[in-house]
Amino acid sequence: MHESSTNRRDFFKSAFLLGSSLLATQVGGTPQTNVAPFVVRAGSTKSKINLGIIGTGLRGRDHLEMMLYRTDVQVIAICDIDPAALAESQKILSERKQPKAEEYGSKGDRDYLRLLERKDLDAVLIATPWKWHSEMAVASLKHGIYTATEVCGGFSIDECWELVRAHEETGAHLFFLENVCYRRDVMAILNMVRQQMFGEIIHLEGGYQHDLRAVKFNDGKQPYGGGVEFGAKGFSEARWRTENSIYRNGDLYPTHGIGPVANFININRGNRFLYLTSMASKARGLHDYVVNHPKGGANHASAQVDFKLGDVVTTLIKCNNGETVLLSHDTNLPRPYSLGFRVQGTKGLWMDINQSVMMEGVTAKAHRWEKQDDWLKKYDHPLWQKYEKAAEKAGHGGMDFFVDNAFVECVKAGIPAVLDVYDAATWLAITPLSETSIATGSVPQPFPDFTRGRWMSKQVDFALNDLF
Amino acid sequence: MHESSTNRRDFFKSAFLLGSSLLATQVGGTPQTNVAPFVVRAGSTKSKINLGIIGTGLRGRDHLEMMLYRTDVQVIAICDIDPAALAESQKILSERKQPKAEEYGSKGDRDYLRLLERKDLDAVLIATPWKWHSEMAVASLKHGIYTATEVCGGFSIDECWELVRAHEETGAHLFFLENVCYRRDVMAILNMVRQQMFGEIIHLEGGYQHDLRAVKFNDGKQPYGGGVEFGAKGFSEARWRTENSIYRNGDLYPTHGIGPVANFININRGNRFLYLTSMASKARGLHDYVVNHPKGGANHASAQVDFKLGDVVTTLIKCNNGETVLLSHDTNLPRPYSLGFRVQGTKGLWMDINQSVMMEGVTAKAHRWEKQDDWLKKYDHPLWQKYEKAAEKAGHGGMDFFVDNAFVECVKAGIPAVLDVYDAATWLAITPLSETSIATGSVPQPFPDFTRGRWMSKQVDFALNDLF
Repeated sequence: MHESSTNRRDFFKSAFLLGSSLLATQVGGTPQTNVAPFVVRAGSTKSKINLGIIGTGLRGRDHLEMMLYRTDVQVIAICDIDPAALAESQKILSERKQPKAEEYGSKGDRDYLRLLERKDLDAVLIATPWKWHSEMAVASLKHGIYTATEVCGGFSIDECWELVRAHEETGAHLFFLENVCYRRDVMAILNMVRQQMFGEIIHLEGGYQHDLRAVKFNDGKQPYGGGVEFGAKGFSEARWRTENSIYRNGDLYPTHGIGPVANFININRGNRFLYLTSMASKARGLHDYVVNHPKGGANHASAQVDFKLGDVVTTLIKCNNGETVLLSHDTNLPRPYSLGFRVQGTKGLWMDINQSVMMEGVTAKAHRWEKQDDWLKKYDHPLWQKYEKAAEKAGHGGMDFFVDNAFVECVKAGIPAVLDVYDAATWLAITPLSETSIATGSVPQPFPDFTRGRWMSKQVDFALNDLF
Repeated sequence: MHESSTNRRDFFKSAFLLGSSLLATQVGGTPQTNVAPFVVRAGSTKSKINLGIIGTGLRGRDHLEMMLYRTDVQVIAICDIDPAALAESQKILSERKQPKAEEYGSKGDRDYLRLLERKDLDAVLIATPWKWHSEMAVASLKHGIYTATEVCGGFSIDECWELVRAHEETGAHLFFLENVCYRRDVMAILNMVRQQMFGEIIHLEGGYQHDLRAVKFNDGKQPYGGGVEFGAKGFSEARWRTENSIYRNGDLYPTHGIGPVANFININRGNRFLYLTSMASKARGLHDYVVNHPKGGANHASAQVDFKLGDVVTTLIKCNNGETVLLSHDTNLPRPYSLGFRVQGTKGLWMDINQSVMMEGVTAKAHRWEKQDDWLKKYDHPLWQKYEKAAEKAGHGGMDFFVDNAFVECVKAGIPAVLDVYDAATWLAITPLSETSIATGSVPQPFPDFTRGRWMSKQVDFALNDLF
């Protein structure tokens, strides 16, 4: 284990020293070829792809806009059960001088299946409410379509296996749109990790610490705040996301934290998650929000709801190569936004909460933090250096550009997704595993090996160059 | 539960509004009287106490110096198996124009028992290596002596019960010298917690994140660094502390983190710890340190040792009132010192890593941190306001003054310890519980209720006023 992990390090070190042009060749070559089941079925490469988007609410339209900045994507089909969402999408297309897209959704929840019947689709992007992601992705894969899906946590381990089987039975690829993997600081730190600046990685932290109270409740008209309605009376995410806070207790949204962490320690590529244990605090935040809101109060219907989701859910994950990962989920309390990243190795430490690093013998003072800025600049990832301008137009500080770019480039090249179905299954699994752990008083829960052993030989493929 | 916790809040709120003079009366009165088994046996109050110190190494001499700043303590007996430590102590006494103390220790490890036979001792302070604390404290309590002991983690649950039984059988009190409970920022935050600035407390974090590599290894002459020796070849803590990192895997030093946290949420006073789960990362830091040290290297004897202590050990604790606590132990890697405190409630959040607070509707900007300085100043604890000058001479940023002051004042007043044997047992228990959890793959471990139910009625007594 030690030897092979040294070899991997040397690979990265020389790869980065050699520069990205050589890597550009390698990424389509060496690292992929010895991964038998990931053989590309599409065969030929494309210079322009036909895309369908399922789910054209706010998030789906983010992706639509992003795709329209590109010249290599044609959005030919859109699907939503809400006619207003389709109309907004057509408006965007028309403003950008694009032909109208074919509309689906008017025939109900499963009208998306008609969209999937189209033979002219190269790829489909799914941005629907959480509970539809896997069903739609599985159906799309079974139609042989290169499929991207928005992030969430899973509902069951079975659903994760279904995704894996749909990929393995058809050879069609799933791209998991975890945009935080492409956050600029995260990628610079990944660059530093791969160059051994932190030594051997020992412990990592990440999470989703985001005051979502004004997302979970609104006035039924605007997407954020203005009231304490949810469900049928809510709008946008409040319409469907909030019910998860009523009925479920677990890390409901693990992937923004775990995606970057998984890349730092090569999960499913020489390493894997072994087991987790989760613990949830009491649930007070959402009730308090409703009671204290000017449009709420103790007698409001929303104040009668018994929210099951603990305000702070903490999960510990043990990895095969000995690392520990701490994952936080904290969405019901007033707090500044923070994904709470920490990367700690034998030679140094990064934390994003204080935006600082310490690297033994490298940063100026022993036992002292140093502000991260110069280091992030120095180790800025080649992708960000190349695409900084293009990313400016994209959402979430530019991350969205990169994740959509990677998806489109993988489809065009006809190669496996760099954030693939095994990543998706592994990360999605955290939610049901954490729910079970919490329900049983923090009893540890083993991770299934969704790769069926292939993690031992699979090569690292994420962000190896400045292409995607 | 809701009602009683509201009552407690109201008590604090009015207590603080009324000011400390009234509280000074209350502390010896109401809060204690309804706690039957904590009745004081000593009976009379004293204006000056006779103290014996067992263990006069570096830490014991810290306490000796601190006691000599006071006019109400006479150190009449000292005990150490190292004659040099006794000589250094006598030197300090003579420099401070104090009479020599009677010496014990020359007759071996258990010569401390002769010291305990003295009838003129009002109190004993224990500052020996970890594995002696409980044996010595139990013996001291059984002699009816008011006993203070330095902090550490426990070795067994049985040892925690032994301490409790020794107290209950004799009525003699144990004061657990957890100095971080008195850290200035911690006490200001406690003040804010008690005034409901953070609302209902939901989640807390703390720990011991301290690069101890130069403590665990030295050159056998100086206490910190200069070599990679330990055990018989090491000096000071390296002589005995390091073996715990060789053989044990758990949170070996939980109390600096858990003490303040326990006070924030009134553990053993209306609340209690229910269970914990722990996870340890791989152990690399100590080996790497030895190998890379100029006086070490791969062939050095210390490099052949298989250190069992995971570099980062993380523990989650569930509390009876629904709070979660995250505890870190991180002593083998290069890192800036940080106890990693976090206090999070329904109305706000404090973190010490970025020295910031956020309180909804109180701090200036929603969703934004505000630097803690003005808040800590505004809510500076009455104890710190009163004793700031006196604390300046003391170690660890003044904390040591307060913990020793509280011990001496409790002895003089003949009242129960404010950090008592139940606190000690509960906090010490974290170590063996975490070792068992880690050894069994993070299986959750229940906390014994060392108070045998009395936590339900016991009143809060820590730092209620400006006396101690």
